[in-house]
Parts: sequence; structure tokens; C-alpha cells
Amino acid sequence: MPTPPAPKPAEASRETSATSSIDLNADLGEGFGRWTLTDDEQLLSVVTSANVACGFHAGDAATMRRVCELAAERGVRIGAQVSYRDLAGFGRRAMDVPAAELAAEVAYQIGALEVFARAAGARVAYVKPHGALYNRVVRDEEQAAAVVEGVLLADRALPVLGLPGSQLHEAATEAGLPVVPEAFGDRSYRADGSLVPRGQAGAVVSDPAAVVERSVAMARFGVVTAHCGSSVAVRPRSLCLHGDTPGAVDLAKRVRERLETSGVRVEAFA
Amino acid sequence: MPTPPAPKPAEASRETSATSSIDLNADLGEGFGRWTLTDDEQLLSVVTSANVACGFHAGDAATMRRVCELAAERGVRIGAQVSYRDLAGFGRRAMDVPAAELAAEVAYQIGALEVFARAAGARVAYVKPHGALYNRVVRDEEQAAAVVEGVLLADRALPVLGLPGSQLHEAATEAGLPVVPEAFGDRSYRADGSLVPRGQAGAVVSDPAAVVERSVAMARFGVVTAHCGSSVAVRPRSLCLHGDTPGAVDLAKRVRERLETSGVRVEAFA
Amino acid sequence: MPTPPAPKPAEASRETSATSSIDLNADLGEGFGRWTLTDDEQLLSVVTSANVACGFHAGDAATMRRVCELAAERGVRIGAQVSYRDLAGFGRRAMDVPAAELAAEVAYQIGALEVFARAAGARVAYVKPHGALYNRVVRDEEQAAAVVEGVLLADRALPVLGLPGSQLHEAATEAGLPVVPEAFGDRSYRADGSLVPRGQAGAVVSDPAAVVERSVAMARFGVVTAHCGSSVAVRPRSLCLHGDTPGAVDLAKRVRERLETSGVRVEAFA
Amino acid sequence: MPTPPAPKPAEASRETSATSSIDLNADLGEGFGRWTLTDDEQLLSVVTSANVACGFHAGDAATMRRVCELAAERGVRIGAQVSYRDLAGFGRRAMDVPAAELAAEVAYQIGALEVFARAAGARVAYVKPHGALYNRVVRDEEQAAAVVEGVLLADRALPVLGLPGSQLHEAATEAGLPVVPEAFGDRSYRADGSLVPRGQAGAVVSDPAAVVERSVAMARFGVVTAHCGSSVAVRPRSLCLHGDTPGAVDLAKRVRERLETSGVRVEAFA
Repeated sequence: MPTPPAPKPAEASRETSATSSIDLNADLGEGFGRWTLTDDEQLLSVVTSANVACGFHAGDAATMRRVCELAAERGVRIGAQVSYRDLAGFGRRAMDVPAAELAAEVAYQIGALEVFARAAGARVAYVKPHGALYNRVVRDEEQAAAVVEGVLLADRALPVLGLPGSQLHEAATEAGLPVVPEAFGDRSYRADGSLVPRGQAGAVVSDPAAVVERSVAMARFGVVTAHCGSSVAVRPRSLCLHGDTPGAVDLAKRVRERLETSGVRVEAFA
Repeated sequence: MPTPPAPKPAEASRETSATSSIDLNADLGEGFGRWTLTDDEQLLSVVTSANVACGFHAGDAATMRRVCELAAERGVRIGAQVSYRDLAGFGRRAMDVPAAELAAEVAYQIGALEVFARAAGARVAYVKPHGALYNRVVRDEEQAAAVVEGVLLADRALPVLGLPGSQLHEAATEAGLPVVPEAFGDRSYRADGSLVPRGQAGAVVSDPAAVVERSVAMARFGVVTAHCGSSVAVRPRSLCLHGDTPGAVDLAKRVRERLETSGVRVEAFA
Repeated sequence: MPTPPAPKPAEASRETSATSSIDLNADLGEGFGRWTLTDDEQLLSVVTSANVACGFHAGDAATMRRVCELAAERGVRIGAQVSYRDLAGFGRRAMDVPAAELAAEVAYQIGALEVFARAAGARVAYVKPHGALYNRVVRDEEQAAAVVEGVLLADRALPVLGLPGSQLHEAATEAGLPVVPEAFGDRSYRADGSLVPRGQAGAVVSDPAAVVERSVAMARFGVVTAHCGSSVAVRPRSLCLHGDTPGAVDLAKRVRERLETSGVRVEAFA
Repeated sequence: MPTPPAPKPAEASRETSATSSIDLNADLGEGFGRWTLTDDEQLLSVVTSANVACGFHAGDAATMRRVCELAAERGVRIGAQVSYRDLAGFGRRAMDVPAAELAAEVAYQIGALEVFARAAGARVAYVKPHGALYNRVVRDEEQAAAVVEGVLLADRALPVLGLPGSQLHEAATEAGLPVVPEAFGDRSYRADGSLVPRGQAGAVVSDPAAVVERSVAMARFGVVTAHCGSSVAVRPRSLCLHGDTPGAVDLAKRVRERLETSGVRVEAFA
């Protein structure tokens, strides 16, 4: 993940969530046909927002339907995890997709998921880009604008979940879309609030206890200890959990439990 | 196209359209990325209902958006042309898709198109299966039921366009969906109202003047002269025109002109 | 799997392998990009022939390369596991692919795999259809002939692994290609040597001990006890093992061990 | 197309082709299933080297087979036009494909085409990247090295066709692969021998007569008049012709005719 620009103070403050409640999001439905990846059943017992793959990097139609039904049953919010069209690369390969194509592809994916959300008695409640697209729109203004155009094509009011200070959030805010800043308990931050890029030493926090502590600190106080030791304001309204590695679901459960025992209400963002 | 069973008299009569008006439908947006196939601009000046490819046999997202915009501008009704997932075969290879997968895939396609229809100020107004799926659900009860389940997932009230007497229409009717029987001016019929199968001698009517005459007769009187010489009741509410061969658009225009000069109102089905 | 016709006595006898040696084959490399399925490392320590997925139902290029390298290192024979083009359905949905397209698609897959086999110092040594295509060519003469045409396009001498008595083996034999009859230790047979179709009671042998015993009996004596109790000649030159379910690799290992302790040489077919 | 670095004098001289003969190459087989793009029959009467699409940006297996047969019949050399995996974008969207994946994908495509070339009595005689990959490897060292690795996986001796001075040619030369510099009669050059980037004024030469003259000058004298008016050495061994726009085939024929009447032998590169 590239280094995002630090959130501007004014914006950060505008986006600040109450420290007494937090949303938990994770990627779900990331299988395809015969292949499975995420433990959707387990994750749905932990998260309050499910980023559902929409068929471009993962997520066949039958899986999308099933995940929406399970999420709706359990009151978990459904979000469209939109991606570049790249099954072979799982959406992890940045692509120079022209803006008009990207906007249409984003809208296409949201619309496809909306059918299953509605059929389950719910709605697509937000949009979160996946993988390489997520990283690209931190800085790429043209693609960020294209993603926002795609969201607007699908629905004038869908919140966009992503990195605070990203071009995506800039573009979404400008277009009148709500933005939901998220933070990562398992990633290191720099003093300016940006992430230590993957590939650099210490980019990922691998000690489960530390991940739990950092998650709680971010949810309760909106702060995290940066790589250099200073405290940084991150003020997330959602924490991103991972569910595609061994032990990930257990860690996600521990994060949720500690949040709750710390007095943080775990609930979908308003 | 396989031979469909002849419509049962009662059903045919229930489905009968007034002979004073007829819908004209054609497949549109059947390119993909760099490739184009149908002359969408021209066809939209002829038809009243556009069967828009939804990405499974053809129809990238940007094309879907553009076709929906053009159709909405001109007041042409937008239908979802749903298909097996088969870009390499253009949806023309019958597939044994399990019912649950097929239902979800149909819903997925309708939802994806709905985004662009709504963004253009319109709605997906009907569903028509494409190619091998169209032919399969004439007789295959399981897949016919799966298509209907897919339509219901997307919308409880979408009309289904297809062959009168087909399993698809049976299943749709049973599920409470409106059905729209269509006929083909360029295909030969048998005495029982079924089509002469492609591959048999005389299956396709190639003389343009004959296509025009047959189209007018079907629209005005609900009848067509069968292969054997007798008159057969077909009572279509829509005529299917083709636009992907040289001269096809010109022929489609001639059909429309002759319908109009014959006093038939060309308008989308009610 | 559909019921195959019983092998004709003359043919069965011509194809009969010595009971003192047997080949073991299994499907490998059946992941795609981010997704994995088969435990390729483990399976390569058991089998003598690896059916490598070639990208149409599974098997991205990097996986194909890695599997070929591992197989070559361990002296495991490499076979092309050719399939319908159907990633979403894992090649398990029968498709009415026109013969000319199917032949070309089979050749395409063999050629793609051949690159990686050669780069690893080996060669594609046989062809085995996958999933729905495997089942289809048991009886479908046109598709069986198309598969054989595809094999011939790629290489005039590649053996074809499949069900004895299948149309595929008929067509391959007629075209001068060697055929390798295989048998299944975990499937029930009928008195005529055909398989009890999946879906019927008792089609699959689930008791591991029974699978081991049947495998040994088939390898040593060329016989298996049919569903009805009588002994049936199957005379395989290869036994098909499965590696994509929990416990499957352990069972495969047990089969191999028991074959070896029973005095059967486990080695690739000649 | 990005601006390529100018060829270094030493390298340019080493790569220089005799001015008395020139190869003509064009992209062929760029349809997919139902869709066609290039007029393969016509182009094969003009070019001496056919860049055949291998299925990743275009080119289904049956088309690959047919184009190889036609090319072999007419003595036209067959080259593998390798691409990013991107049917929806026709390989025109640059992708950050990891080197190991890209190398394997390049080898995969070459192997698939080789089957059809051999079946037609020919061989894949060279490799040319397509679209965004072509442009990317002008400057991207990692992807250039990956393409070369892919070529080496497939065949230790395949020439690589591309821009003189590109990273691709650097990497190929370093790996011991022959390189074939090409030039474009319909593109403007800068004084340093690089192309005026598309999107800049005058990047494309649209006057057919000028295209013909420039092509002849490049083939006979190895020079072209740069945008600024000075003469630049380009010394191509191949000229790239285009065949996917109206009038393109006619222009290609005119180029060939004028080359021949100017005393240039039109023949495949040695």
C-alpha cells in the first residue's frame, strides 16, 4: 500500500467519529466458483460491515447471493468491494484503466451486488475499492474521480470507505458523498498519519496482542503510536480486519472482544 | 433454434396482443471492449425495445452505459439480454449450469444493467435470454425455472420476452411474471406454430420482401403462413429484428415502415 | 459421471496392463491466481503422473510453471488436463462447443503446458480431459473426435488417458493414438464394467480401507467387485487418485503404500 | 506510446539492417470468438511477418489456428503477439503484473501459438509485445526482463521485435536473443530518434502519401525526417503496418508497392 498523504487537520476533525463506537469491516465472499478464500460464516460473526467481492477480482454470483443473505440475517451491513477486472491477479495489479471505463465498471459491480442485497432485504450501504484500486486512488486523482463517478452512477448517496486524506475521499467529499475513514490495527503509521509502506521494515504489525491494543487505542482515543514513537491522530470510523490468513479470524474476534470489554460499542457506522 | 412446442390455444389466446400495435425488439450493445458488432445508433431508430447485452456474452460496462443513455434519450425501452457466461462463444454454446448458479448469474446481469438504465433516467423493463440460453429454456424446465428465479431475485414484476409456449413462459407465468410472446419475420413456422429448426431446409426466410410481408401479417393478423402452406396463429406482442448482419438494419427499417404504412402502431409492449 | 459403456472384450484385452505395475494419476495445479486447491507438493510425492490444469478451468501460467518444475524434479510424468473454457464453473458444466473450436482449444492448452514442461526438462507425456469434458467424451462422438483432433494438432503421438470403452478411447485408437485405461478405487462399478453414476446410491466408495483394497485388487488382478457382488475385469494401466478434499492426500499415500507392500510396482505407464 | 530513448549509436549500428531489404509486420488474428477486427486475408497478402494474437488481448484458439494456416500457406512468418491478460481492454491498459507472473504468461502465449504454427508446418519465428505491454517495456526494466524471461522459457533463440533502444531490446540482447528493430511510417520522430508521443500534436502522420514516402525512406536509407526537420537514423529491419482501421489495408498495399518499385526487397528479416 502506498503512503497516503496525512489527513489535513480540518478534514480529519470533520470526519472524526465518536470514540465510543466503531465499525469493523472485512473483505468477504472472495472465492470464485470452486475456490474459496475467506471464512465468510466466521467473519460475519465479527464484523459490522462486509465488503462483498462483486465478481471482478473474486465473487461469483452465487457466492454474492449467499453472502448477502447471511449478512442480512445477521444484521451486518453490505458494502460493494469494487475492483479492477482482474481475476487472474485477484485485483492486485494496478491497471491504467481509462476513466470512463473505470467509472462504468465500478457502477456495474455495485448494481450487480445491489440485486442480491435487495433480494436479502437489505441494500448496498457503502463502497470500498479493493486491492490495487484501493491503493491507486490514494493518490491518483483521475482514477479517484472515476470511482466516485461510478458510485454516483449507481447511487447519489453511497458512503465511500477508504483512507482518510486519500484522493478518493477528496473526490467523494467534493461530489457530496459521505466518506468513512478507516484505520488498520495491523499496520504501522508514520508521524504524519500515513501508513508505513508495505515492503518497508515494520510495515505490518504481526504481534496479535499489539494489533489488539492498537485497535482499541484507535477506536477509543483516535490515536495510534507511530513508528517513531509519537502519538498520531487517525480517528477512524471503521477498523479494517483481515480474514484470509490462518489465525486471522481468531485475531479479529479478539479485537472485537477487547473493544467491547473496553467499553467501545461495535456497530456499523452511522 | 430448437423446435418449440406449439402454444396451447388457451394460453395463446391469453397472451394475444391487439393486432393494431406491435413492439419491435433487437439485440444491442453486443460489442466488447475494442470490438463492436451491432449498429446501436441505427437500430435505436427502428426498435421500440432494446435487448441490451449485460457482459456475459458481450457488453462491457461502458457500452452498456452508452446504449442505455441512447435508448433512454430516444424513448426506447431497455431490456436485459441475459446469457450464459461465455464471451469466447458469444453465449451460443449451451451449458449445463446448475440451477442455483444460473439463477444468480441472471440476477447479477439484470442488476448490472439496472444501474445504467436508472442513471439514464429509465429502468430495466423486461428480460430476454440470449443465444443458447434462449434456445435451452424453450424445453429445459430446470433452466427455465432458474431464469425465472433470477428474474424474481432482481424484480418481482419484470416481463419475460420469449417464445410462446416455451418452458420459460410457462415458468414465468406460474411465478406471476408477465410474458411477452415474440415472433420472427425471418423464420419459417410449422403448422403447430413452432419454428422450423435452423439447419433444416427453409428454416430462414432470406428474401427481404417476404420478411417484410410476414412481419406485417404477424403484427396485423397474428398469423403467418407455415412451411406447409397453412395459416398459423402466432399472435406476437413483439417482433424480433436482427441487426448484426450486412443489410440487416435496412431490412429492419423496411419492416418498420411497412408496419406503419399498414396502420400498425409500432410501440413498446404495454 | 455418466455410465460408460463396458469395454469390449477384444479392446479390453488389447489395452490390458501387466498386473505387476500400475501408474497413479491425480489432478494438480488446480488453483488460479490467489486461489489454491490441490496440495501439489504432497501429491507429487505420491503419483507417477500429474494431470496439470492448463488455464481453462484452473491453472494460471505461473502455477503451471511451478508444477512442471516440481514434477520434473521428482520424475513425475506431466500430462495436460484439458478442459472447457470455464473458470467460473471449474470445467464442470458440460458445454456444446462446436468441434472446430473444441479441437483448437484442446491444442491451445497442450501447447501452453508444453512450454513449461520443456523448460523444466520434460515433455507433455499424455492428455486427460477434465470434469464435464471427461464425462462428455465417454459417449459424445463429436466432442470425442474433436478432443482427438486437438491432441493430433499438438502432437501425433500423445497417449490419451481416460475410461476404457469411452468414445474418446475409440476415437483415439482409430486415429492411431495410444490410450491408457484408468480405474477409480473410490467408485462403484456395475457388472458390465461401467461406473455406477454419481448421484445413485453407493456410487462413491467412502470407506478408506475399502478404497485401498479395491485399488490393490484392480492393480494386481485387474478386477473389482461390482455393486452386485460379481467380479468385473477393469484392467487399468493407471489409477486415478483425488487430492482436493480433506484426507485425500493421506488416502492417496495409503493406496500407494499398500500397492507397494503388495508387490505392485508403482510407475508411470510405458 | 511513450517516448523511447534514442538508440545509442553503437547499438543502432549493430542492429542496422541492409537498406536493400525490409520486413513488413502487422497485427493479425485480433478478433475473439464472434468478433473480428483485422482483415487477416488481405493483410497476409501484404506483410512478410504476422504478429498473431495469442488469446490474452484477442485471438481465440480457432482464429489462431486459421491465421497460422493461412500464413504458412503464403510463406508469411508467424510471430507471437504477446499481451497482458486483458480482453476487456484489448491489452491497452498498462498493468503492474509481477515479473514472475508476466514471464509465465508470455511463455504460455508463445507455447499456445506454437502448436498452431507447427500444425501448419511452420514455427513461431519471433515475439512482439502488444499494446500497453509494448509501450511499457520501452522503459520498464523489470517488465522488459520478465518478457525476455518468458521468451527464454519458450525458446532460447526467438528474436524479439520492438523499438530500437528500448529496455526490451537491451534485456533481450543481454540475454543473447536477437532483436529486430522496427519503425513506423505513420508516426513522427524526434531528433533523437524517439517517437513523438501520441497525444502530442503531429504524433501521427495521417497523409497516406507521406506515410508511403517515409516508409520508403526508412527502408532504403534508414532515415526519416524528424518533426523538427532534421534527418534521423532509424535503420529498421521491419516496418510496422496497421490493419485495423478503414483504408489501412489499402495504405499497407501502397507502402509495399512503392517499396518494391523503389528497388527494396520486401522479405522477412533474416
